[in-house]
Amino acid sequence: MTYCVALRLDDGLVMLADTRTNAGVDNVAKFRKMFTWSAPNDRVIACMTSGNLAVTQAVVSQLQEDLDAPDTPQETLFTAKNMFGVAEVVGEAMRSVQGTYGPGLAAMGESSGASVIVGGQVKGEAPRLFLVYSAGNFIEATEDTPFFQIGEHKYGRPLLDRIIATDTSLEDGITAVLLSMASTIKSNLTVGMPLDLAVARTDALTFEQYRRIEADDESFYKLTNAFSDALIDVFQRMRAIEV
Amino acid sequence: MTYCVALRLDDGLVMLADTRTNAGVDNVAKFRKMFTWSAPNDRVIACMTSGNLAVTQAVVSQLQEDLDAPDTPQETLFTAKNMFGVAEVVGEAMRSVQGTYGPGLAAMGESSGASVIVGGQVKGEAPRLFLVYSAGNFIEATEDTPFFQIGEHKYGRPLLDRIIATDTSLEDGITAVLLSMASTIKSNLTVGMPLDLAVARTDALTFEQYRRIEADDESFYKLTNAFSDALIDVFQRMRAIEV
Repeated sequence: MTYCVALRLDDGLVMLADTRTNAGVDNVAKFRKMFTWSAPNDRVIACMTSGNLAVTQAVVSQLQEDLDAPDTPQETLFTAKNMFGVAEVVGEAMRSVQGTYGPGLAAMGESSGASVIVGGQVKGEAPRLFLVYSAGNFIEATEDTPFFQIGEHKYGRPLLDRIIATDTSLEDGITAVLLSMASTIKSNLTVGMPLDLAVARTDALTFEQYRRIEADDESFYKLTNAFSDALIDVFQRMRAIEV
Repeated sequence: MTYCVALRLDDGLVMLADTRTNAGVDNVAKFRKMFTWSAPNDRVIACMTSGNLAVTQAVVSQLQEDLDAPDTPQETLFTAKNMFGVAEVVGEAMRSVQGTYGPGLAAMGESSGASVIVGGQVKGEAPRLFLVYSAGNFIEATEDTPFFQIGEHKYGRPLLDRIIATDTSLEDGITAVLLSMASTIKSNLTVGMPLDLAVARTDALTFEQYRRIEADDESFYKLTNAFSDALIDVFQRMRAIEV
């Protein structure tokens, strides 16, 4: 399984992915699910993937191959004129990969289902966030729903529902996605450390943070333990309210 | 969908069920999913159901019919010598109903899947909690895992994972299940008010509380709003911890 979460805030984008994959409970591995590209002063782009790992790796590889072939005729992540165009590029890569492997997987009764969260900013417009489905179609995050989740999204959702609005600060956003991830990891073994975090402040057009939080990261555990303690404390305060 | 949660604490049992059912998103209805029986000074029993509504209603009806037929040859909820026996009675009712309707439902491509949480105390032993599956087989809650959930269990789980242990007080247990339910209702439209709450303190052999919390219950909203506010406050305190 997988858990990836992305916020589209007024102050910028916050994206967090775990790295655990599993094919059955006895075949657990570690794979990067977050991929970033940036062209200084022009654009930052981050993708996070969920679903059939062969499919999502093929999508990411195709995006990179097209970037690396300077005379490629089609639009790429760097030639797309805005983030909508970037989402189209990712969607087109998804459609292409699904066209190649989808029927064969379906014939074997395997799912080729996959999804990609695409976030970023292209100079001249605000940061934008998209969710690309298996068919290559996609939706965009709005003021009403300023976050997307893929994979094991339920455990970590109540926190986000209560905290995240477009005017949430980047710092609070980072705390929120880390705690949302911590809740998911605590409740589901198929989501696991290390984590990949990407933060792009509005109009910086570069990643303010793009880093791995390792399994032995002391600050992460300091945060999650403090949150657990605070939650218990909150419970104790709730005692006063009789229902 | 449904969300039911039950705690088996040293101090007693806490059980909470929602009342919303849906067959598709446009066919939403309200049905009781919690059913209780008690024989003063001998036993208290509560069942909560999830899954195919016709199946679970048939199971509960059969349990009641057997109780109402005093010369029934088989064991009933009131003749079973302990809670293990009570769980067997519920499991047997489930097996009987599945035998009657399961094949027909399967032939139509419909699921007969259903599960029942059975909690209670029979004089002479401690309170016990069981989860009965569609095949009538069941498991029992232990010190390591002192709670069961059925239905839409993920949204409300992180709270329980952090708070519930066997030595949690009944009062904190009630707060925990109400907040677990509130998180689920907030994040999933197919779980909804009103709620049914049952509380049986150890060795009381009667329900200390068995009541409906209506959609307009002021204390419930006072609690959930206070919790939301406190969560936001906790977030603000987490700001100090940099990851």
